[in-house]
Amino acid sequence: MKKIGKQTIVFSNPPSIIGNYSVVGPKEGNGNFSKYFDKILEDDKFGQDSYEKAERKMFLTAIEGAIKSCGMEKDDVDVLLAGDLMNQIISSNFAARQLQIPFLGMFGACSTMVESLIVGSMLIDGDFFGTVACATGSHFSSAEKQFRYPLELGTQRPPTSQWTVTGAGCSILSNKKSAVQVVKATIGKVVDWNVNDINNMGGAMAPAALETLYTFFEDTKTKPADYDLILTGDLGKIGSEVLRDLLEYRGYKLGSNYGDCGQMIYTNTQKVFQGGSGCGCVASVLNSYVLERIRTGKLKNVIVVATGALMSTLSSQQGDSIPTIAHLVLLKGGK
Amino acid sequence: MKKIGKQTIVFSNPPSIIGNYSVVGPKEGNGNFSKYFDKILEDDKFGQDSYEKAERKMFLTAIEGAIKSCGMEKDDVDVLLAGDLMNQIISSNFAARQLQIPFLGMFGACSTMVESLIVGSMLIDGDFFGTVACATGSHFSSAEKQFRYPLELGTQRPPTSQWTVTGAGCSILSNKKSAVQVVKATIGKVVDWNVNDINNMGGAMAPAALETLYTFFEDTKTKPADYDLILTGDLGKIGSEVLRDLLEYRGYKLGSNYGDCGQMIYTNTQKVFQGGSGCGCVASVLNSYVLERIRTGKLKNVIVVATGALMSTLSSQQGDSIPTIAHLVLLKGGK
Repeated sequence: MKKIGKQTIVFSNPPSIIGNYSVVGPKEGNGNFSKYFDKILEDDKFGQDSYEKAERKMFLTAIEGAIKSCGMEKDDVDVLLAGDLMNQIISSNFAARQLQIPFLGMFGACSTMVESLIVGSMLIDGDFFGTVACATGSHFSSAEKQFRYPLELGTQRPPTSQWTVTGAGCSILSNKKSAVQVVKATIGKVVDWNVNDINNMGGAMAPAALETLYTFFEDTKTKPADYDLILTGDLGKIGSEVLRDLLEYRGYKLGSNYGDCGQMIYTNTQKVFQGGSGCGCVASVLNSYVLERIRTGKLKNVIVVATGALMSTLSSQQGDSIPTIAHLVLLKGGK
Repeated sequence: MKKIGKQTIVFSNPPSIIGNYSVVGPKEGNGNFSKYFDKILEDDKFGQDSYEKAERKMFLTAIEGAIKSCGMEKDDVDVLLAGDLMNQIISSNFAARQLQIPFLGMFGACSTMVESLIVGSMLIDGDFFGTVACATGSHFSSAEKQFRYPLELGTQRPPTSQWTVTGAGCSILSNKKSAVQVVKATIGKVVDWNVNDINNMGGAMAPAALETLYTFFEDTKTKPADYDLILTGDLGKIGSEVLRDLLEYRGYKLGSNYGDCGQMIYTNTQKVFQGGSGCGCVASVLNSYVLERIRTGKLKNVIVVATGALMSTLSSQQGDSIPTIAHLVLLKGGK
């Protein structure tokens, strides 16, 4: 069995990430990672007549870009694993319709990028496929419309809120060797500490990151200092601080090697309060800056733990708190 | 590589289905499979204050029942694969919250049962886990509310419509041998023949079943007559006839060994027009009648191909046609 401890998998033939692509909106293009993104849109509608269609086109752009980045054709991809925040994951479904790659729909809210990487890595390590594409994305305007208020209302944002990243990312996993490998993974359990403020996602999701990181350190008998970088998906500023405190209380102190994609993606002057969120946050940061730093040898072992808030507007309206989850992969540099 | 032909997987150590459970609503309990279901609700609200919470409770009942059916505890299950029709798959998320089993959210609309069985089988055959729970379900009233009209309106149903099954089912996959094995699987591509009538799901989904069955027969060099039973998920009456015609046109004639869960679940007097649909349709029929018939040796090799319509209300409102998908597993009886 490749499972160790409670929830962690050690791959016997670690799959490689042989290709990747990121596409983001104009606001993200003005953020901290502008020089790392493959494509920055000038128009956040991407020439489409709705934000949902723009999201879908970003999805397609990311997947096609990632396939091209490793010199492949879409027919070379055995299966596409993708999901997104839109009801019934329509961005993924419609992208899969156009691509005509066998498709397995995933849903882990903002944890979907890592969920897909974990499942994809298992399918490659298990010798089912040679090439798997993993993709996700989000759009600020389609998410606001679906989960919060129509943008036209100009509703004031509370200080604990985060800004859904307009962006999509795709990684191509392969059984061939390359400079980035997926070596371990931890599948999360659903965690709910009874937070019901949908304007404080970081606070709601921090306990999920805590549980998954804690389980990973226990399962692997390692500690935070053993890694070059520990990256959460989109806890934002408050959420990251909450995670630091909680994890220290459980015996693991995060050092300066800890970062959060949501906190890092925008500059301090961009008025996004706690930072970025959404499936596109970790998807665009991982598939640009992070993979680039691993490929060039600047980072050697990187934990990516993506968190997701698993509520719907209806579950919130019916008075439920926010169930959350966090999935983790350990990436290793060097062939 | 365990992939043969274009899209089909042949398991090297076929996982077994060692446990299963089905729970259905009162209407389904009056249908053709009443004596096979594990639990029939007298009240389709299941003692809850909303249909969504009733759906969630059915989910939990199915998973707990399936775990118990093979003499296990929930801690013995390595991972739960589940998805449903509710926005952001909340029925699955909230069930996973209560169960505290590591969780991977899936979405394939009404194909989710088979999607989960395929992924679960790969995770077991790949030696990642020993025990995987696969679950899905749906509720007539929550689905009508979300996808169509408030029930209180009393909107007339068109003759091509199907009735969303109130029911949930769960299968427990294991690396231990038992009387039912998952031996092959085909992952579908998204198929869209430009149907945009959301009251004719069977017609929209039949082409997806066609493509996946055709690919499976080509990949495995077999024909319909080689199987005891070929079962589609929920094409209903029209959809099944469309599939028969289309498949015959492509060189494979379905005989009397073909059936459709949606067509079979209700009696002719139950006024459901084309028959049942929803994630709970194939989930409840598979996890009752079908597995029972395989276990008792009455069926030896059974193809289950579950179809899903991957649109959302928003994609339909924006004028899009209905993307569909079909995933297939081949089940074999005998140890």
